[in-house]
Parts: sequence; C-alpha cells; structure tokens
Amino acid sequence: MNTFDIQPVNSNTAAALTHKINYKTKPLGALGVLEKIALQVGCIQDTLAPALHHPAIVVFAGDHGIAKEGVSPYPQEVTYQMVYNFLQGGAGINVFSRQNGIAIKVVDAGVNFNFEAHPDLINAKVGHGTKSYLTGDAMSEAECSTAIDKGAAIVKEICAEGCNVIGFGEMGIGNTSSAAIIMSLLCELPLEQCIGRGTGLNDEGLKKKTAVLTAAMDYHANLDKTPFNILKTFGGFEIAMICGAMLKAAELKMVILVDGFITTAALLVAAGIDTNVLDYCIFSHQSDEQGHALMLKKLKAEPVLHLGMRLGEGTGAAVAYPLIKSAVNFLNEMASFESAGVSNKA
Amino acid sequence: MNTFDIQPVNSNTAAALTHKINYKTKPLGALGVLEKIALQVGCIQDTLAPALHHPAIVVFAGDHGIAKEGVSPYPQEVTYQMVYNFLQGGAGINVFSRQNGIAIKVVDAGVNFNFEAHPDLINAKVGHGTKSYLTGDAMSEAECSTAIDKGAAIVKEICAEGCNVIGFGEMGIGNTSSAAIIMSLLCELPLEQCIGRGTGLNDEGLKKKTAVLTAAMDYHANLDKTPFNILKTFGGFEIAMICGAMLKAAELKMVILVDGFITTAALLVAAGIDTNVLDYCIFSHQSDEQGHALMLKKLKAEPVLHLGMRLGEGTGAAVAYPLIKSAVNFLNEMASFESAGVSNKA
Repeated sequence: MNTFDIQPVNSNTAAALTHKINYKTKPLGALGVLEKIALQVGCIQDTLAPALHHPAIVVFAGDHGIAKEGVSPYPQEVTYQMVYNFLQGGAGINVFSRQNGIAIKVVDAGVNFNFEAHPDLINAKVGHGTKSYLTGDAMSEAECSTAIDKGAAIVKEICAEGCNVIGFGEMGIGNTSSAAIIMSLLCELPLEQCIGRGTGLNDEGLKKKTAVLTAAMDYHANLDKTPFNILKTFGGFEIAMICGAMLKAAELKMVILVDGFITTAALLVAAGIDTNVLDYCIFSHQSDEQGHALMLKKLKAEPVLHLGMRLGEGTGAAVAYPLIKSAVNFLNEMASFESAGVSNKA
Repeated sequence: MNTFDIQPVNSNTAAALTHKINYKTKPLGALGVLEKIALQVGCIQDTLAPALHHPAIVVFAGDHGIAKEGVSPYPQEVTYQMVYNFLQGGAGINVFSRQNGIAIKVVDAGVNFNFEAHPDLINAKVGHGTKSYLTGDAMSEAECSTAIDKGAAIVKEICAEGCNVIGFGEMGIGNTSSAAIIMSLLCELPLEQCIGRGTGLNDEGLKKKTAVLTAAMDYHANLDKTPFNILKTFGGFEIAMICGAMLKAAELKMVILVDGFITTAALLVAAGIDTNVLDYCIFSHQSDEQGHALMLKKLKAEPVLHLGMRLGEGTGAAVAYPLIKSAVNFLNEMASFESAGVSNKA
C-alpha cells in the first residue's frame, strides 16, 4: 500500500478569514454553518479568497460476498444494473450532478460482472466481488492494498485535470453490512447500534442481517483490529478504494465532500490510518440509515443537510454542493460594512 | 383590502405522483424530504411533470417606529443603507440569488428615507416607517390594506412575466420585534418564547426589548385580535406587503419559498386570513432566531435546511432553492426500475 503524506490545514489563515467573515454586511454569525464552511475551505486552500474548481464525484461500485447470505432485500445483480443506470445518466447521482455542474466518474472497483469497455467507465476491477467474511476474509492483503492504491491513483488523475473539490459515492448490494461492522469496530459501539435497514429491510430481514453480522464478528473475534485489517476482513473493494481516494485527496489538499453511511465508514478507516484527513472533510448530510448519526457524532462532524436521504451513490454530496459554493461565494462576493457604507452595530 | 381566492392544491394528483416517485431507481423513500417536496410541487402544479420557471425573490424593506425604543443594536439608517447594498449587488441575498439563477426585486415598502428613482428599486412606499406601537397603532387600516394590496400587485406582475416559484425577503431594523408580537398573539405563546436576539442583542438588550414589547402588548390588551388587526397594530409595511404577496402567490398557484422569522410571521397572518395559503408553502430553513422553531412547529412545517442562519433578506430561500430544483429534477429525470432494467426489491 502507498503511504500518504497529509499535512494538517494551515490554521494560521483562520484569524484573517474570521475577520473577513465578521465584517461582511450581516449580523455576526448570521450565516451559521455557511460561515464555518467558508472558514474551513479558506484554511484548506490557505487563502482569503478560496475557489472551487471542476467539482467531481467518483462513484465506486463493488460486490460483496456477504450479499449471498440474504443481508439485503435486493439481489446482487442490482449492482451491475445500477452501473449501467449511471452510465446511461438515469440514476439519482446523475440527475443531481448534472444540475449542479459536477462531473461524475463511474468506477468498477470489483463488480461481479464483466462490463464491456465503455468510455465513461473506469475499469479498476480488483475482483468479481469480495468473498463472504462469514468464514474468511473479504479481501486478501494484496487485494485491499491494490484497491486503496487504485482509489488514490484515480483521484490523483482527477486532481491533475484541475479539480479541487471532490465527493465519493458507492454502489454495492450488501455494503451497509460492511460499513456496520467497520463502524462497530472503529467507533467501539455495539453492532446493534450500527446495523440499519439499508435499502429497506423489514423487521425479519433486519433480524437476519444482525444474526449474520454477529456470526461474522464472532468468527473474527481474534482479529488484530488495525484499521487496515478491519478493512481487509470486512470491507468491500469500493470501500477500500474510497478510503485510498480520500487519503490521496487530502494529501493533494482537495476539499472532500463526505456522503453517507458507506463513505463515512471508509473515512473511519482513512482517519484511522491518518487522522489529518479529517481536516479536509465537509460532511454533506446526515443519512437516514441508522448508525450514520452516531458515526458523525464520533467524528464530531456537523452535517450540512438533514434531509432523511439514504440513497448512497454520492447523492448527499451532490445535492449539498450548491451550499458549499454559497459559502465560498459569500466570502468572496459579499460587501463589507465599510465597502457598502453600512453602519455597524453600536 | 383585496380579497383572495385561494384554492386548495389538487390532491387527486398525489396518488399518481407517489407511484411515480416510488418506482424511481432507489429504495423506497430514500430521497427523504426531496420526495415530499416533489409531491407537493406536483400537487401545486397538478401535474406529474412539474417545472420551475423564472424563480424570483422579492425583498421588501420598511422601517419601524419601534426602532427608536432601542430594540435593535443597529441604528435605523441601516435599513436604507442595506437597500443600497441590495441595489449594488453586495448583500448576501444578491450573492446567493446570482449563484442560483434567481431574479431579485427590491421594494421600498416604507423606508424612512427618500430614494432617488432607480431602475431596480420598486417604489411601493406606504410611509416613512410605521409609527411606534408603544402608544398607538403601527399603521392605519388604510395603510395596512394598501400595503397588502401593493404586495399582491407586485406578485401579480412577476407571475405575468412567467415566474411560478417565488420567495420573499425583508429588511427593516426592528422587525423581529413586530414578528415576535405577531407570533405571540397568533400562536398563542408567551412573549418570552417569541422574542430573540434579532441581529445580535446582548443580555441587557434582550431584557430591554422584552420590557418594551411587553409594555406595547399591555397597551393594546383590549385589541380585537383578528389577523388584520394584529398586523395593522404591530406589523411593518414590509410584513404587510409580504402577507399580501403570499396570498396572491397562492391564488396564482405559485410555489412559495418561505424564509425565516419575519416572513413566517407574515405567513401566520396570511394563514389567519386564508389557511389554504399553506398548501403552496415550502419552508426553506429553520432560522437561528429564537422563536422560529416554535413558529414552524405551530405550522407543522418541516424546514428544508437547518443551517443556523438568521440573516433575513430571503437568504434562506435563496440557498435552499437548488434543493427544490433537485426535488423536481429527480421526479422528471430519474429512470424507473423498468426503464433502466434494474431489478426491484424481492
């Protein structure tokens, strides 16, 4: 696995940014969360006049051996079918990215299907889905390292094309199961608090999912629980790639738009590898998937949106993007009390 | 005062809209609040394929006699100075409207200042600020009716230009005081729960504001508390115009983007006049001004954004607008399970 050299953001700029924000023609603090985002983006870019260029969302798709154990109400074939939906422009992430001027890249991280070559599909396939972690490891060490590296390489290329703000999405039937176990181990929370209904399990399905995942965790009880080992054992190819992609994006000082439950699980692993990655993260929304609220709490993250969404694909990041732009725009474009000739507070 | 003929939205379309939403390529309900907005806009426009045309935000500015009693930390002249800021494009509402393709109209509803003619300023001045309601009525009956009618006329004209989605903003030093009393009377809540720090009062200022408003309410204790009388007695010219503007927008079946504390106070009056207006309202955000959360609760409203904003000017509506567009776009553009060839849930 590559190593990553992630610098903490330059907080020396913070005081000057705060001054600039406070003298805009508005009551102190009146733009709330937008002010915090403006401050963060300014610190990431180390400037009083940050700019967002060529926003992109990379959707990583991968299959999961655990899907065969009946942890999702949808069949595994939906993963590859949804990849076609992405390529045809009909999925939620397509609609929202188109609206907001965000470029989408679709990556075959390890779908259990052989795609013909397609100009809009990045082939980074590590395998035809992971193995079931019920009685073994989802990935080999080499596979997990490869996935991390491929995620990093994809981001490096996108950055070289001029992008400085990036989000990550995922598609993979069964991947809320991976994310729940990763969360349980890295947040040190009981599995029950981490498992949710995913794409829409009923009570019986939820019970089954819990039983399967409990058995999996019992099987691996003696695992040496480093972030990498947890990822390799329970992760998915798409989750490992997002982890590598996030680490590289932070190394390259890009603004990272964190999406929902799965991508935040990838971030938990990334932050376990290098906590500095968190300096670059804006948490776009709080997913309705049970567990995400607790993940965000663990990360002391304040999500931008609370819309009860739980679609994945990076859709939370895509719909939140205009608000990130609003934050940067008010910092750059709003008049100050002085420039507008407006009397300040007595 | 004009009367308004507001039809309830056509809920006959709701079942077909819900079916269309449910068969999009996503788990049931996975777009959360966006699904509710799509349903509402579809019902307002009575179609399975709604469209948003020529979005506009009208910012009404007016002065308040009560401002002389020291209820705001800013001097009254800030109202007219901010009007110039709007006209020069330097205010928050300018930045966010520009970003999101929203036309802004600025209205002198009754600022205590004589503006020279300006192509972007609509002159609807009812007076040079309201009178202090500490020892009399803020407006005469005729003034209040005129303000409502002028607000309605402005919306009628904007609608005639092709706009079908409209938000309202305000500027007026002292207007959180008006809004607090209107809220207290129409929501039947103690004044203390309705008064907030406005543009940033300290503890002492808050105490003074509470004392002034309590005295005002005591003075008018015997008022016949109809919505119109409450508006006339405690309102502002900009609040009355927003009330009329909302009623007309609903009559014209436009989508109304409700902003924060002041505009929701105007809506309380409008809904008191005709409750059908609420069918047309999307609540763009929950303001950080104490009282707004309770207002929204009273209206059973679910705000789109929770960003801790409290700037007014219609800024909440402006930053929320891309999410309203996202709701309409997914309804129109997302593939269905059938059209995309994706397997649905077992």
